[in-house]
Amino acid sequence: MHTVEQSRAGSPAGAAAKTTRVAVAGATGYTGQELLRLLSRHPAVTITAATSSGAIAARKLPALGHIFTGAITPLDPSTLAQDADVVFLALPDKAAAELAPMLVDAGVRVIDLSGAFRLRDQALRARWYPETHALPQGLAYGLTELERASVEGARMVANPGCYPTATLLALRPLIAAGLISPGADIVVDAKSGVSGAGKTPSERTHFSEVHGSVAAYGVFGHRHGAEIEQGAGCQVNFVPHLMPLDRGILSTIYVRVVPGTTEESLAAVYGRTFGGEPFIRLVGSTLPEIKHVAHTNFCDIGWRVDPSGRAVLVSVIDNLLKGASGQAVQNMNVMLGLDQTTGLL
Amino acid sequence: MHTVEQSRAGSPAGAAAKTTRVAVAGATGYTGQELLRLLSRHPAVTITAATSSGAIAARKLPALGHIFTGAITPLDPSTLAQDADVVFLALPDKAAAELAPMLVDAGVRVIDLSGAFRLRDQALRARWYPETHALPQGLAYGLTELERASVEGARMVANPGCYPTATLLALRPLIAAGLISPGADIVVDAKSGVSGAGKTPSERTHFSEVHGSVAAYGVFGHRHGAEIEQGAGCQVNFVPHLMPLDRGILSTIYVRVVPGTTEESLAAVYGRTFGGEPFIRLVGSTLPEIKHVAHTNFCDIGWRVDPSGRAVLVSVIDNLLKGASGQAVQNMNVMLGLDQTTGLL
Amino acid sequence: MHTVEQSRAGSPAGAAAKTTRVAVAGATGYTGQELLRLLSRHPAVTITAATSSGAIAARKLPALGHIFTGAITPLDPSTLAQDADVVFLALPDKAAAELAPMLVDAGVRVIDLSGAFRLRDQALRARWYPETHALPQGLAYGLTELERASVEGARMVANPGCYPTATLLALRPLIAAGLISPGADIVVDAKSGVSGAGKTPSERTHFSEVHGSVAAYGVFGHRHGAEIEQGAGCQVNFVPHLMPLDRGILSTIYVRVVPGTTEESLAAVYGRTFGGEPFIRLVGSTLPEIKHVAHTNFCDIGWRVDPSGRAVLVSVIDNLLKGASGQAVQNMNVMLGLDQTTGLL
Amino acid sequence: MHTVEQSRAGSPAGAAAKTTRVAVAGATGYTGQELLRLLSRHPAVTITAATSSGAIAARKLPALGHIFTGAITPLDPSTLAQDADVVFLALPDKAAAELAPMLVDAGVRVIDLSGAFRLRDQALRARWYPETHALPQGLAYGLTELERASVEGARMVANPGCYPTATLLALRPLIAAGLISPGADIVVDAKSGVSGAGKTPSERTHFSEVHGSVAAYGVFGHRHGAEIEQGAGCQVNFVPHLMPLDRGILSTIYVRVVPGTTEESLAAVYGRTFGGEPFIRLVGSTLPEIKHVAHTNFCDIGWRVDPSGRAVLVSVIDNLLKGASGQAVQNMNVMLGLDQTTGLL
Repeated sequence: MHTVEQSRAGSPAGAAAKTTRVAVAGATGYTGQELLRLLSRHPAVTITAATSSGAIAARKLPALGHIFTGAITPLDPSTLAQDADVVFLALPDKAAAELAPMLVDAGVRVIDLSGAFRLRDQALRARWYPETHALPQGLAYGLTELERASVEGARMVANPGCYPTATLLALRPLIAAGLISPGADIVVDAKSGVSGAGKTPSERTHFSEVHGSVAAYGVFGHRHGAEIEQGAGCQVNFVPHLMPLDRGILSTIYVRVVPGTTEESLAAVYGRTFGGEPFIRLVGSTLPEIKHVAHTNFCDIGWRVDPSGRAVLVSVIDNLLKGASGQAVQNMNVMLGLDQTTGLL
Repeated sequence: MHTVEQSRAGSPAGAAAKTTRVAVAGATGYTGQELLRLLSRHPAVTITAATSSGAIAARKLPALGHIFTGAITPLDPSTLAQDADVVFLALPDKAAAELAPMLVDAGVRVIDLSGAFRLRDQALRARWYPETHALPQGLAYGLTELERASVEGARMVANPGCYPTATLLALRPLIAAGLISPGADIVVDAKSGVSGAGKTPSERTHFSEVHGSVAAYGVFGHRHGAEIEQGAGCQVNFVPHLMPLDRGILSTIYVRVVPGTTEESLAAVYGRTFGGEPFIRLVGSTLPEIKHVAHTNFCDIGWRVDPSGRAVLVSVIDNLLKGASGQAVQNMNVMLGLDQTTGLL
Repeated sequence: MHTVEQSRAGSPAGAAAKTTRVAVAGATGYTGQELLRLLSRHPAVTITAATSSGAIAARKLPALGHIFTGAITPLDPSTLAQDADVVFLALPDKAAAELAPMLVDAGVRVIDLSGAFRLRDQALRARWYPETHALPQGLAYGLTELERASVEGARMVANPGCYPTATLLALRPLIAAGLISPGADIVVDAKSGVSGAGKTPSERTHFSEVHGSVAAYGVFGHRHGAEIEQGAGCQVNFVPHLMPLDRGILSTIYVRVVPGTTEESLAAVYGRTFGGEPFIRLVGSTLPEIKHVAHTNFCDIGWRVDPSGRAVLVSVIDNLLKGASGQAVQNMNVMLGLDQTTGLL
Repeated sequence: MHTVEQSRAGSPAGAAAKTTRVAVAGATGYTGQELLRLLSRHPAVTITAATSSGAIAARKLPALGHIFTGAITPLDPSTLAQDADVVFLALPDKAAAELAPMLVDAGVRVIDLSGAFRLRDQALRARWYPETHALPQGLAYGLTELERASVEGARMVANPGCYPTATLLALRPLIAAGLISPGADIVVDAKSGVSGAGKTPSERTHFSEVHGSVAAYGVFGHRHGAEIEQGAGCQVNFVPHLMPLDRGILSTIYVRVVPGTTEESLAAVYGRTFGGEPFIRLVGSTLPEIKHVAHTNFCDIGWRVDPSGRAVLVSVIDNLLKGASGQAVQNMNVMLGLDQTTGLL
């Protein structure tokens, strides 16, 4: 079994000088702060810029004291392109849609955490991300474990959404192996912590409205539904729910499997797909829980199959790490030819 | 629309003397304490006995100070049958299975909050509740709004489980109206607060294991699944999840509806079924949230339908009230010919 | 011991027609909604108006469905004075400071839940509530148990703040009895749920900032400190803390008692002061917890004394009920000559 | 300012082989699991043993999958002494009291996370830790920043309690500098997450009892009070409270300072004491929050002083890290001559 010890021992990063220059645009949101935290302790990179919009630039980030001690500056696209080799965009969709092509054209590698470049289909993109025009050349969809070859050679990575990451890592291997009954409904009931909604206060994320409550939202109308369907290659009935916790997603996936499929069949497929992956933990019928992955880059996947052909898949991640900033750094590692776990364990 | 004012004004309870004697067996658990709280302020009944097993009998119930000031005594079946007209059983399944038939035979009305008498099918009951032998004569399944006629004449009520209550109130009207596509899977993804697991400490309900976490449990093996299937009359794929909150259930139900069915179709069916019901609030496409029903006996139901025939139903209750003690008192009111809202608003 | 049964039995309210007309100004905030909920089920009053500022008036209040079904209308001072006998003000300080004197002059009884009229000292009021000019004639400070005579004859009640309510109910009886060592510091370390901060979203009350955290705030600068010092008659070192829960306040009070004072001494004083009070529960050395009073109008008080003369008092309330709307209704009951528990149990 | 970059750059650990052998006794509790997590990624040590009592040994630790993949074995003192250079004891007091002297005698370095060896005074120890007999030679009290010289040469470290760590780091520098008024009461009102109570389920730590609640406990009778008084050198009025969160302690300390003391005076003292310390963050009058230090080894300290000489100090830590396992690893680093931040950032 792949262990942390082995992956660190095999990493060339330990001896590497911190030669790669990285910038974070949108450094004061939740995903931006996680990027600063991860990149500050990353042995192979140096943060050369961290930007925020004017109003927020002066704010302090108390959780990052003694960790990131650099300045937060206003965003200047031309400076970013000169001062950094890799730019992380933790920006609203519209800002990312405008900035990313400029940076790619300037020869900078871009890892975009917004949704602006995740959908390949022009019509779908026009519906969900109308600010996005063309897709840059050399664009990869950064679901690392399933798109590694594409990420390795990419000039830009569209980092997947949190719900799609949790869902597709469990669902796609089974679809690829032909274990899902065609034509049967696929239901994805996803439960998320509130940090996925970002840092801007709203009635929806007001403490007293969320504490002691659970609510479905975005039924038949969440952009991540389109992204999940793109990854699955078929219609998916996706309903997200807001839970009274801060970090984490649990995705419960209901499918019909083809006759003769057992829990062992699924174990075999997942084992083949993810056997050597340091960040995927296959827990089988014990089923995973959000607490086990909070504050890590792991995705834990469990499954149950009954004799009538019903299967329930359960997948958990930390939405800010494997669902955003952690996977973004993992993608950077892959792009730079580093061990993918560098700075993430 | 039925309002609280109207139902109170129309109630005969206001003028009634507190002539009905009630007992609570198992008074120190969470549902038992809720029963004491509700029955103490109920204008038509007097609590004549509250029992607990020996070890717990001496415990204080600090939340009930100045509300219930009577004694908690050891359980004595013969005394119960003499001193009370109605006995609530808030006991483990095995104890209820033994005690209920004796009380019914002694001429006492029984409202049983355990699962022991919920399943009508002998084979299913033998699997899930092996301690239960025969069903008493005059037994009703106390899903009040849908079984009122049966409850009115009952000698004993099997109070429904919390998950079945939330689920069946939303699902059964559509099945009865023929709106659900036969043959298509029905998925019930339910989210519950921790109080549903009762008052006995366990690893599963340890604060540090639940806080900041979400977990599925009982996949393909929860007794409430059998109870839901009994009520629905068909197979249902039911998966409960434990949420980091104390009280409340949200049940998300995924069905296929027959061609031509719209959100207005569902509104019409629900309106016909529940139009005059004080405890059912139909919220339509806005979807309900647990917070809106916590600490009440309401069940709020919302729904969404898409053009391809997928429907999502969302139903919320307080698991200790409409899912247990509140519905039990509602059933008592119906059995006694009182306004069903007496003592519950 | 005073029990709920006794207090209800002794109430004249049961037979009263709902003849008193009441209005709620600011009906959509958290305290406003609690007022609507309490007053809707109150047997002796009818809600004749519920107002909100224009922007919010159209909003729905899903938790109040089937409970309050009247209209929410824009605030019109002249209408309020004509249509209601008692007006509850659940408004910002500035709005209450302007409106209350007009209503009192018009002959309406006013119960003000804002802070505008709580401080008697002109200089202190000028500092903390500069919008407030003169105090109306017939104004009482509505800490019901300790100011009942004053409330009975009042034309207007300044309903106490939540922190002062929890703190002064525990502290004032000991000061009045001469048990507190003069000159020694009094420390009040108070812990509050987030609903005390109101319904308007802010960074401070954003779920992800509060969940999993605890923070002190307002050190040496919280207006409730001045109100506590007014009630105590001496300097008090008051520091409030924000806790990750929705409802409730726990106030831990550190004092020095005069030589010879024991836990029994305190029990005797509290017993004399609160012996017949239905809403004060004296729990002694077992110490109270927020959970025991949440969603009730109770204040539970516990205490410990050590041989060296240190004493720790612990007092808990639900900040929205005994700390706001519940005590407001209790004050109305006293003003109207009703049993003070009417509609509150 | 001391930054993470600088401290890492100055560490000799980066180049060190993993030559030090470490063992964890009591590896499956919350602090034991944190030790496994920290030591697995520590670049200078190898875990050679992880033990648990028989009943728990077979349990899985799902959060540690892919992190610690070694075996959990029953405790064998003789093996521990042979196979490890440093042994961490994350055991109950009684077990630690017996085992630690044997290990020290066998020449192994011991870091004890229990309370058994924290109190130097024989009489106090007999009261609070009666299982502990003599103190081993070469014992240091491991409040790292304030006892570094002692820890450097120690054969055994008594790792401080969580409440004392948070409290003494803020309080002792002011006492040492003579800024605290002698004779005036010192009040320590501490708020803790539930993980400090350990992993064994109990009524006190049952989710439904803690969620939505706050409770004081151990008034005048908590062992950490004696430990705080030992560190402060004077009487301290310490009251801990249980909060509805998992990890973290916030200690609010109320003192009187000598005339002329200002916030700047405190800033100067803290700056002199902790200026170069990587794990102490001085935040001054903005006051720290638990969220800023959760899942880190930081202690954040803030303070306010008013003109009348009252001061409020606020100190926050993660109870499982700086309050237990993190500080234990920090102490190991100091004992081994490594940079103290190794493996902790």
